[in-house]
Amino acid sequence: MRKINLDLTDKSYDIKIGNNIIDLSNVEKFVSNKEVLIVFDSAISGSRIMQFKEMISKSILKLELIEIDANENNKSQETLSEIYSILVENKFSRDCLIIGMGGGIVCDIAGFSAATYQRGVNFLLIPTTLLAQVDASVGGKTAINHPKGKNMIGAFHQPIGVIADISFLKTLPEREISCGLSEMIKHGLINDINYFCWLEENIEQVLRLEPEAIEEAISRSVEIKTFFVKEDEKEANIRALLNFGHTFGHAIELIGGFKDYNHGEAVAIGMILALELSERIGNISKQDCTRVRDLIDKAKIDTKIKNPINSVDLYKGMMGDKKKRGNVLNLVVLEDLGKAKVSSEIDESVILEILNSSL
Amino acid sequence: MRKINLDLTDKSYDIKIGNNIIDLSNVEKFVSNKEVLIVFDSAISGSRIMQFKEMISKSILKLELIEIDANENNKSQETLSEIYSILVENKFSRDCLIIGMGGGIVCDIAGFSAATYQRGVNFLLIPTTLLAQVDASVGGKTAINHPKGKNMIGAFHQPIGVIADISFLKTLPEREISCGLSEMIKHGLINDINYFCWLEENIEQVLRLEPEAIEEAISRSVEIKTFFVKEDEKEANIRALLNFGHTFGHAIELIGGFKDYNHGEAVAIGMILALELSERIGNISKQDCTRVRDLIDKAKIDTKIKNPINSVDLYKGMMGDKKKRGNVLNLVVLEDLGKAKVSSEIDESVILEILNSSL
Repeated sequence: MRKINLDLTDKSYDIKIGNNIIDLSNVEKFVSNKEVLIVFDSAISGSRIMQFKEMISKSILKLELIEIDANENNKSQETLSEIYSILVENKFSRDCLIIGMGGGIVCDIAGFSAATYQRGVNFLLIPTTLLAQVDASVGGKTAINHPKGKNMIGAFHQPIGVIADISFLKTLPEREISCGLSEMIKHGLINDINYFCWLEENIEQVLRLEPEAIEEAISRSVEIKTFFVKEDEKEANIRALLNFGHTFGHAIELIGGFKDYNHGEAVAIGMILALELSERIGNISKQDCTRVRDLIDKAKIDTKIKNPINSVDLYKGMMGDKKKRGNVLNLVVLEDLGKAKVSSEIDESVILEILNSSL
Repeated sequence: MRKINLDLTDKSYDIKIGNNIIDLSNVEKFVSNKEVLIVFDSAISGSRIMQFKEMISKSILKLELIEIDANENNKSQETLSEIYSILVENKFSRDCLIIGMGGGIVCDIAGFSAATYQRGVNFLLIPTTLLAQVDASVGGKTAINHPKGKNMIGAFHQPIGVIADISFLKTLPEREISCGLSEMIKHGLINDINYFCWLEENIEQVLRLEPEAIEEAISRSVEIKTFFVKEDEKEANIRALLNFGHTFGHAIELIGGFKDYNHGEAVAIGMILALELSERIGNISKQDCTRVRDLIDKAKIDTKIKNPINSVDLYKGMMGDKKKRGNVLNLVVLEDLGKAKVSSEIDESVILEILNSSL
């Protein structure tokens, strides 16, 4: 088991990564003598939930559970209201604990309910997808969707712990693993050329979930993510680099009605667009672009456009992005493979040109 | 004009208090070049809103307005959703500004929408009731109600400025002024016997809104409130003392369906109950209680019970309080006039006895 500490000004917590690590030694200190609400993903097997419930039952004060059918449409005000109602009706106090067990959607919504119930209570995350283990569970970004924009409503609220158990990954469809790999490739691209090269060499072992390879990969991704969060918790500056490919990606998800593409696929398409933009403005070479495309293909991330996308519509979707300041769109581009920066100086016409030639 | 600075670890802002101070010199730096959403109370005259709109129109980037019919039932998820929709549909960026102009309900809901839109944007408060000027607008507590509990959903999020203009108070009904006085008496009771004595001597001038008296009173109350917030922004310990009378008071409001009593009246009844409890456990004398009752009466705060209240129901309502930790009810009691403390050692039976004899 690896342990990565995320040390922030007024909070510090551990992210534990390993195989079969959901045991009392890792969980008890969080749940002991607490009112506990478990927000869990319907994709998790009933027996795993039962097992977990059994394990903690002797230590806790009170237990409630809510199952979330995890899709973007359910990452909503309505689901949030259901969670609030359970908490209020069972008179959970400020000293309670919310546990989010599932993929990114469950982590985000469990975190946001914890951020806002009684002005903030503790939460523990047990991410069960590769994507959630390397992204949503780390760094305290919590959110729900607005019908007209993804993650538009949210808060920064750090968990008190994260336990990333790779045994959950075995039952995931390959498409889900690829989705996580999309973010992992991003981590290499924006911050660590060595990690990118390591992924190029080990992509097959990672895809096959070979324990050593997957644990190493998750740990390196989490280290990169924690580096950015430590430097800039509230995304005032460099944390924004983690959004590489995401301004395009979120707009693609929105246009696809959150059905045509999963998050990893949309981000991968977004990264390809951002790479082309980076090439267009002279930062990287055509060869660099090809090299990244090759890795994305080897990671089996589906980057095909499912339904025709109109460039102007996509651009409009991008203008709803959270990184926009006033009327200026801030885009993350690469300076080189392994190094990213935010650019606010890219003309609308250049972006539309890239979209027109690529979509 | 008085200026009181609230200096917190990662944020510092001024609370300005005075007569006719809503001018460009006090507002421009906040709105300049921003997308601005004004959340305003339907109780404010249309001409005042027009005037304000006119005043800032040249400095800003974009302007949207939403009028809130300010009652506790509208301090809801639904109203919040309307605010979100305006922000999203008009593509407001993270760099926007929300202005809350109104009483406590508007301040709280404008603040909570700012706390959660795109994980937090700036907001400016222009409190227009006495209660909001001495309480809701200061200290960054933002919230909406849950159908089963007041202020159950919320966040700590500090404004970037507060402008408390006493000219708004002239058009308020006397009941509203009394409501503010309830919190002001509380400030004296928990922290400053001199202020309490000053209120005893000047209550008539304050009630008549004589400019010097009301400005002095608001300033002293705001100073006390900022003292607690500075010491303990997130209410981990002493800020909780500001809740004197509120555990009883919130339950009374809830039982009265948020109609029978306004907030100040419920808090005044709650304070009387908390004083009787403080006397019962030997902290203060019967004379002390009478002295406070007299001031509450002189402040014309209506403390009559409108519909019979069942003690057990009230106690149950109190158990839903946010200050509860696990199953323990934390109540604020007085150690002496001008000095409060939190007690978690008061028996249910003692509380019920007080309720039975007083209600």
